[in-house]
Amino acid sequence: MKKQVKAEIISVGTELLLGQISNTNAAWMSEKLADSGIPIYYHSVVGDNLERLTEVFQLAHNRSDIIFITGGLGPTEDDLTREAFQVMTGLEIVQDPVTIQKMENYFAKTNRTMTLNNLKQANVFEGAHVFQNSVGIAPGIAVEYEETIYLFMPGVPREMKSLMLEHMLPFLADKYSLSDVIFSRMLRFIGIGESQLEYELQDLISCQTNPTIAPLASEGEVAIRLSANADTKAAAINLINETESMIVKRAGQYLYGYDNDTIEQKVFALLQNQHLTISSAESLTGGAFASSIVDMEGSSAIFKGAAVVYQTETKADVLHIPEHIMKHYGTVSKECAEAMAEQVKSLYNSDIGISFTGVAGPAKQEGKEAGTVFITIINQQAVHQYKLHFSGDRDTIRRRSVKKAYELLFHLLKK
Amino acid sequence: MKKQVKAEIISVGTELLLGQISNTNAAWMSEKLADSGIPIYYHSVVGDNLERLTEVFQLAHNRSDIIFITGGLGPTEDDLTREAFQVMTGLEIVQDPVTIQKMENYFAKTNRTMTLNNLKQANVFEGAHVFQNSVGIAPGIAVEYEETIYLFMPGVPREMKSLMLEHMLPFLADKYSLSDVIFSRMLRFIGIGESQLEYELQDLISCQTNPTIAPLASEGEVAIRLSANADTKAAAINLINETESMIVKRAGQYLYGYDNDTIEQKVFALLQNQHLTISSAESLTGGAFASSIVDMEGSSAIFKGAAVVYQTETKADVLHIPEHIMKHYGTVSKECAEAMAEQVKSLYNSDIGISFTGVAGPAKQEGKEAGTVFITIINQQAVHQYKLHFSGDRDTIRRRSVKKAYELLFHLLKK
Repeated sequence: MKKQVKAEIISVGTELLLGQISNTNAAWMSEKLADSGIPIYYHSVVGDNLERLTEVFQLAHNRSDIIFITGGLGPTEDDLTREAFQVMTGLEIVQDPVTIQKMENYFAKTNRTMTLNNLKQANVFEGAHVFQNSVGIAPGIAVEYEETIYLFMPGVPREMKSLMLEHMLPFLADKYSLSDVIFSRMLRFIGIGESQLEYELQDLISCQTNPTIAPLASEGEVAIRLSANADTKAAAINLINETESMIVKRAGQYLYGYDNDTIEQKVFALLQNQHLTISSAESLTGGAFASSIVDMEGSSAIFKGAAVVYQTETKADVLHIPEHIMKHYGTVSKECAEAMAEQVKSLYNSDIGISFTGVAGPAKQEGKEAGTVFITIINQQAVHQYKLHFSGDRDTIRRRSVKKAYELLFHLLKK
Repeated sequence: MKKQVKAEIISVGTELLLGQISNTNAAWMSEKLADSGIPIYYHSVVGDNLERLTEVFQLAHNRSDIIFITGGLGPTEDDLTREAFQVMTGLEIVQDPVTIQKMENYFAKTNRTMTLNNLKQANVFEGAHVFQNSVGIAPGIAVEYEETIYLFMPGVPREMKSLMLEHMLPFLADKYSLSDVIFSRMLRFIGIGESQLEYELQDLISCQTNPTIAPLASEGEVAIRLSANADTKAAAINLINETESMIVKRAGQYLYGYDNDTIEQKVFALLQNQHLTISSAESLTGGAFASSIVDMEGSSAIFKGAAVVYQTETKADVLHIPEHIMKHYGTVSKECAEAMAEQVKSLYNSDIGISFTGVAGPAKQEGKEAGTVFITIINQQAVHQYKLHFSGDRDTIRRRSVKKAYELLFHLLKK
C-alpha cells in the first residue's frame, strides 16, 4: 500500500517578496504533482536570508514528507539555499564533478573566465542523487534526511520544468511506486449562481468524499471540480462519471462544458456546426462582443462584422434607427435594441443579429440606472428580447453584458 | 521613530495548491507594500482546511507584526478563513449590518433569492474595523490580536486590490505613521524598446543608488521605476525630480506619462482637449480598438463608433470599399486601409478616421505573413499610413496593433 505522502513547495528569492515576479513556479509544479497523485499542502516563499531560510526548512521538515525547493542555488553571495539546508542538517557539501566539467566546457566555448563563485553551482550534498540540468548549469539535487525527501532545483522556470519532467517526477514515481491516481474533471455551468448551485448539490457536497466536489466561481459562471482517487485512471473516471450523472440530474440544464472549455468556444462551435453567421450592433459594449469572437481562430466563417454605434447620432446615421424610436422610448430601451439587431442583421447580411444597448455608468442615462442593459437576439425563428441588470463598475457591466450574450446564444443554439 | 515592522501574506485557497491559478495577489500586494515601506518576509499558501489554516495563522502570529490574509471569505462551506482565525483567537463573530443591507439590495435588484449561506459574507470579528468593498460584497476586516494586526480581504483580485488601495494602505500609513519614506515614480515610455532605453541610460542605471532606476518592460511599452528613500516625502520627490530630468534629456521624446497613466488615457485626453471625434474601421482587430476607447468614462464625447468589417463581402457592403481596390491590392494593403479610414470617417462623420487591416494568423492570407498589419489614420490635415509587422500569436498580434494605434495617435496629436 502506498504511504499517503504530504508534500510542500518552498520558493526562495527576495524578488518574489518584492512582488517583482509572481510565483508561477509553484503553480506549475502543483498542477503537475496533483496529476501525479502527490498532493501539495503548502507553498512558502522566503527571501535570500540564512536565518529565515533555515527556519522555513525546519518548519517544513516537521510537517511534510516531500519538500520541493526552488531558487537560491546560483553563483552569487545572495544564493543561500544550500547553506541553510546545511545549517539544519549538518550534511557535508561536496562538488559534483560532472557539473564542474560542464562549466569548464561552457567557459572555454564562450571564451570567458570562470570565476571562483561559479564553482558554487557544482555544490551538492554528500549521499545526494545529482540530476544533470539539460538547459542550464546548476544540477537538481535529491537528498533524504530523517525520512524526508528534499528536492532542490534552480528557480529559473525553464530549468525547474526540465528537471521536474526529466528527473524529479520519475524519481518520485519510482520511490513511492505511485500506484493510485488522482483524476480531476471540471464541470462548467452558466446561468446559475454559485450559492444556488451549491444549494442544489448541498447533500452531495457534504457527503461525498471520493470524488470530492468543489465549487469554484468566476465571473458570470460557476465550475465544479470533481477529483477522484483510485487504483487506476479508469476506476477514477468511473467514480467521476457516477457523481457527474447525479449532478447533471439536478443542474444539467446549466452545464455547458468540461475542463478548459469556454462558453465563447461552445457558442462558436454551435454556430459553425449549424452553418450560421452572426453580426452585432453594439452601443455600451463598444465592440467588445465582436472582439471576443474575432479572438477565436476561424472566425471569418461565422462572423460578418459589427456596427459599433456609440452616439445617438451614429445610431441614426449608420444603422438608420428611426428617430421616433429613440425619442419615444430612448436609446436604452428594448425597442431600440430590437431595431439595432434587425438593422445590423440586414445591413451585414447575417443569419443572426445581436444588439447591446444600456448604461455602462457611472452616471444614469435617460433616467435609467447604470447597469441597465437590453440585449436583443434575432435569429431565423424569432426575436428574443432580454432586459438585464448588472452591478459593478463600467468595465464589469460591459464584460458581464458580453458574457451574458454568450449564455443567451448558447441556450438558443443548443436546442 | 518608526517601529520596524515585519509583515507577511497568507493566501488561502485549494485552487492555488492545485496549481489552477498562480498567486498573483501576493506579488501585487508585495509590490505595493514595498513602495509603502512595509517589508514582506514570507508568503504562505494554504488550502481550505480548518486545521492547517489555524496552524499557519499561529505560525504567522509568532513571527510577524502585520498579517495580510486573502481568500476563504466567500459564502460556501469551503470558506473557512474566519473560522480558523476564531479557533486561534476565540474572538466572537458578529454581523456587519452595512454588508447585510448591501446584500439585500443586491438580491432585490437582481430579483434573486438570498440563501442563508450568503449571509456568511457579512461575518466580521468583534472590535474589528470593517471596510466596505466598493466592487463586491465581502468587506475587508482589520483586527488587532495580541499586538499583531490581521487584515482580511477576499481572494478575488479586483476586490483585494480595491480594498488595499482604498482602505488597507491608508489604515496602515495612519497606524504606523511611517516616518522615513520610500517614494516611487514610474516614467512611462512608448516607441522605444527596453534594451534601447536601457542602453541610453546605462551609466545612470549602474551608478545611481538613490533613487534606484529599474526598467520594466510590458507589452509595447517600457516603464522606468524611480524609487527614492529620504526623511520626508518632499526630499524623496526632490531626488526623483533630479534623476528624472537627466533621463528626460536623453529619452524625453518617448515619455508619455507617469505612474498609472496609460497611453489610452493620454490619447483620450488629447482628443478631448482638442475637441476632436474619432471613429474606427476594423478588420483584424475586430472592434478591440473601439472597445478600448469605450472602456474610458466620457467616451461618448469623442467616440462616434466603429465599423467592424471582418469579411471581404462586409467591407464592400457596409463600408463601400471599391471592389477594384480589394481585387487589385488585396484587403491586406495600404490602399484598402486608406479606403477603410476614409469611408468610416465620412460615414460616421468624425474628425479622425482610423483603420486596421492585417493578418492575425496563424495562417497566411493573400500571400501575406501573419503579423502584417496596415493602419491608416486620416485627420483634418493629412493621410498617415503605416505598415507594421508584429510577431506572436493571434491574440498578441491583435493587441499590439491596438497599442500601436495609440502610440501613432499620441505622436500625431501631441504636436
